[in-house]
Amino acid sequence: MTPEVPPGMFVSGPLALRDAALFTDLYELTMAASYFREGMHEEPAAFSLFVRRLPPGRSFLVAAGLEDALAYLQSLRFSEAAIAYLDSLRRFPPDFLDYLRSLRFTGEVRALPEGTVFLADEPLLEVRAPAVEAQLVETAVINFCHLQTLLASKAARCVIAARGRPVIDFGLRRAHGIDAGMKAARASYIAGAVMSSNVLAGEYYRIPPTGTMAHSYVSAFPREADAFRAFARAFPDNTVLLLDTYDTLAGARTAAAVGRELEAAGRRLFAVRLDSGDVLSLSREVRRILDEAGLMSVRIVVSGGLDEMDVERFVEAGAPIDVFAVGTRMDVSADAPYLDIAYKLVSFGGRDVMKQSTGKRTWPGEKQVYRFRDTDGRYAGDLVALRDEPPPEGGEPLLRTVMEDGQPVLPGETLDAMRERCAAQIAALPEDVRRLRSGALYPVRYSERLIALTRAVEQQSGTEI
Amino acid sequence: MTPEVPPGMFVSGPLALRDAALFTDLYELTMAASYFREGMHEEPAAFSLFVRRLPPGRSFLVAAGLEDALAYLQSLRFSEAAIAYLDSLRRFPPDFLDYLRSLRFTGEVRALPEGTVFLADEPLLEVRAPAVEAQLVETAVINFCHLQTLLASKAARCVIAARGRPVIDFGLRRAHGIDAGMKAARASYIAGAVMSSNVLAGEYYRIPPTGTMAHSYVSAFPREADAFRAFARAFPDNTVLLLDTYDTLAGARTAAAVGRELEAAGRRLFAVRLDSGDVLSLSREVRRILDEAGLMSVRIVVSGGLDEMDVERFVEAGAPIDVFAVGTRMDVSADAPYLDIAYKLVSFGGRDVMKQSTGKRTWPGEKQVYRFRDTDGRYAGDLVALRDEPPPEGGEPLLRTVMEDGQPVLPGETLDAMRERCAAQIAALPEDVRRLRSGALYPVRYSERLIALTRAVEQQSGTEI
Repeated sequence: MTPEVPPGMFVSGPLALRDAALFTDLYELTMAASYFREGMHEEPAAFSLFVRRLPPGRSFLVAAGLEDALAYLQSLRFSEAAIAYLDSLRRFPPDFLDYLRSLRFTGEVRALPEGTVFLADEPLLEVRAPAVEAQLVETAVINFCHLQTLLASKAARCVIAARGRPVIDFGLRRAHGIDAGMKAARASYIAGAVMSSNVLAGEYYRIPPTGTMAHSYVSAFPREADAFRAFARAFPDNTVLLLDTYDTLAGARTAAAVGRELEAAGRRLFAVRLDSGDVLSLSREVRRILDEAGLMSVRIVVSGGLDEMDVERFVEAGAPIDVFAVGTRMDVSADAPYLDIAYKLVSFGGRDVMKQSTGKRTWPGEKQVYRFRDTDGRYAGDLVALRDEPPPEGGEPLLRTVMEDGQPVLPGETLDAMRERCAAQIAALPEDVRRLRSGALYPVRYSERLIALTRAVEQQSGTEI
Repeated sequence: MTPEVPPGMFVSGPLALRDAALFTDLYELTMAASYFREGMHEEPAAFSLFVRRLPPGRSFLVAAGLEDALAYLQSLRFSEAAIAYLDSLRRFPPDFLDYLRSLRFTGEVRALPEGTVFLADEPLLEVRAPAVEAQLVETAVINFCHLQTLLASKAARCVIAARGRPVIDFGLRRAHGIDAGMKAARASYIAGAVMSSNVLAGEYYRIPPTGTMAHSYVSAFPREADAFRAFARAFPDNTVLLLDTYDTLAGARTAAAVGRELEAAGRRLFAVRLDSGDVLSLSREVRRILDEAGLMSVRIVVSGGLDEMDVERFVEAGAPIDVFAVGTRMDVSADAPYLDIAYKLVSFGGRDVMKQSTGKRTWPGEKQVYRFRDTDGRYAGDLVALRDEPPPEGGEPLLRTVMEDGQPVLPGETLDAMRERCAAQIAALPEDVRRLRSGALYPVRYSERLIALTRAVEQQSGTEI
């Protein structure tokens, strides 16, 4: 945090949020007020953030969003404006509001590093803190970790489907707002996308920006050829021509003519883009037109409502597509626009607890996740265990302590480090788990101690009056 | 804009975005650079923002997001940091970057007021401005109008399904990021939701905040009854008890006991909340338990992964549910997480233009939308016409001029005004269009002049080399 940032201001790249302590559900504050009244507010509590079930058709997730969550925790404080607003609600007593004035997050956070592959029931983050602190941050921590985990997990599927061909993020315009537009670029880069159309993400996250022309540009000129030539004049080394404003194959022939003109001038047409129609057959015909014009090096970029299933279909059919520009359906995770993610109390005042609601049961206790490899280095399975039980032999612990006493304890990571982690972990998954239409379940076991604790906690039903 | 806001800072409620001019797709800037180079940058251009097709199962949309779009246009400028970043990309010539330094949005905007019901092909916003200005703002204008239109349209369905029972917004935690969380509260309030769990939306948008306790709160006490009594001590006038941490019906009996204790002390239990299980049958059994305890006035709130289809099912079954708390699936518009929204060039340099790509054809020319009523005041159908053709008799024009010369020309509206508009317009829709599972299409016609212009523009194929 730079010194100019006012207290209570949460900053994420170019985005700043005033009174971020109020970016919360009201019930976090009503619960806090009751804990305070009962003298329970400093009881040690632990919460676990995890995904209950993977979305249909998904076989793994990619953790992301931790950097925002930690920045939020570090900056958490109630401004006088925030206190005045809460006071205006006439629900909160003055001593509680006074307490909020001095409240800071002083707890411990353990988390999966961004880019880590994880499964249902495996905590991606655990908080241990005085009860009110651990409870109050629920909404923001879920919001921040959910968004980027959702988007990185979706983008990873697009990258897998492209089998090494570049995937670029084109989804800014239909991402859900400003924050989502920025985070879609960040999360898809972590998951392996190579570039983004989002210029601000280029400035703040140093993700290479990409893009050339829209249909409007072509329409603005009397003839398509005029547009293509004008663009080549402005960007002789980055000319990408959009072919489908009128008729894709006619556009391809025009592009080929312009490509030859560029070659005659000692330049090269860089690429053409298809954005509509039957891309599979069009890409082949466009390739043929370009090749017949001697333009073998001109790349074909495809965009237009793609998702990972389209990308897989084109790749499997051997379509001559060099770059996949994936937009809306990646940036809103269209097939699964939310995760069943929850932040649940697992211990309070030294007592392990669990929720027993129908269909929403949780595992009690603070945890660690261990990952095992088989002899060729592939991931063989995970074990969810209690935090304090002896580590199993050969298991790599995945949750790292990232914050102690409210302060980060690890240096910040670069996006490239997260991206490398993600690529390495996806490569180490069993092949059938990595498949888009995977019926395969990656094996996740639960330790005997965790199972025994769960049975013991179940017995204390807590429902007697 | 307050004077302290630095140039290029876009502010929306508690959220501020630095260098908002870079919140754009790179191609907006490459096109702009080419227009500048060709001397076309000040050619008059007009763009139309519209939804090509409604999502499956939807029969109308609700326009929202205009306030953000106008604030963005008014604040648009390139900071020196933004210029330096663009320069670092080594694509843009110095004279173009100089031009960007002084660029402001000086155009005209016509738009549907927020809360207006609209259909496919009907512009929700039109921009007329010098070519570069009108083009550069595409990404942000789409992003801002798309998000809130998407969310207001979804929330309107939840409100319709509840048939007058209150709907409250509980979706903050899984909304797509900070901006989406704020805008979900705003958009759902415009669409008729009565409250939101989002406290910051309470502070900035004055949307009444709501919420009481989570399962973690109940788990934090040794016995459920202890939790209920502690909460009643802290909030004797706002006690809402969550029943399903362990067993819903046991929870209901405990709540009834606490409710009787409150009555004995001259207070009243306000409500109970169900969050899991078979809500239809549980709500009936809980009602019976409460009624048998003489707690007829205690309301039943239902939450837990609801969408409008669940709400409709519960209402049609006559479930004794008083309040619907709708969360994730409303705030991410889960069944349709994006709209097929586009911002398309409709005229350039005085020439009407259209896009002819397969499946993505557009209507040329600036437009106006007229709405007609039948004799009992119900909406009878809309007409999409050219802006400059004589208004049809009896048609109410829907697009209003909201910005001229880059400055707003109408006073800002309150959320309540938008909300009243939305309610009145939905009430005026034909009943079969308002239904959730509507097969009915609201009639939208196109004027003869618009059809004739479209035919004429099609003839100019623009594809000759």
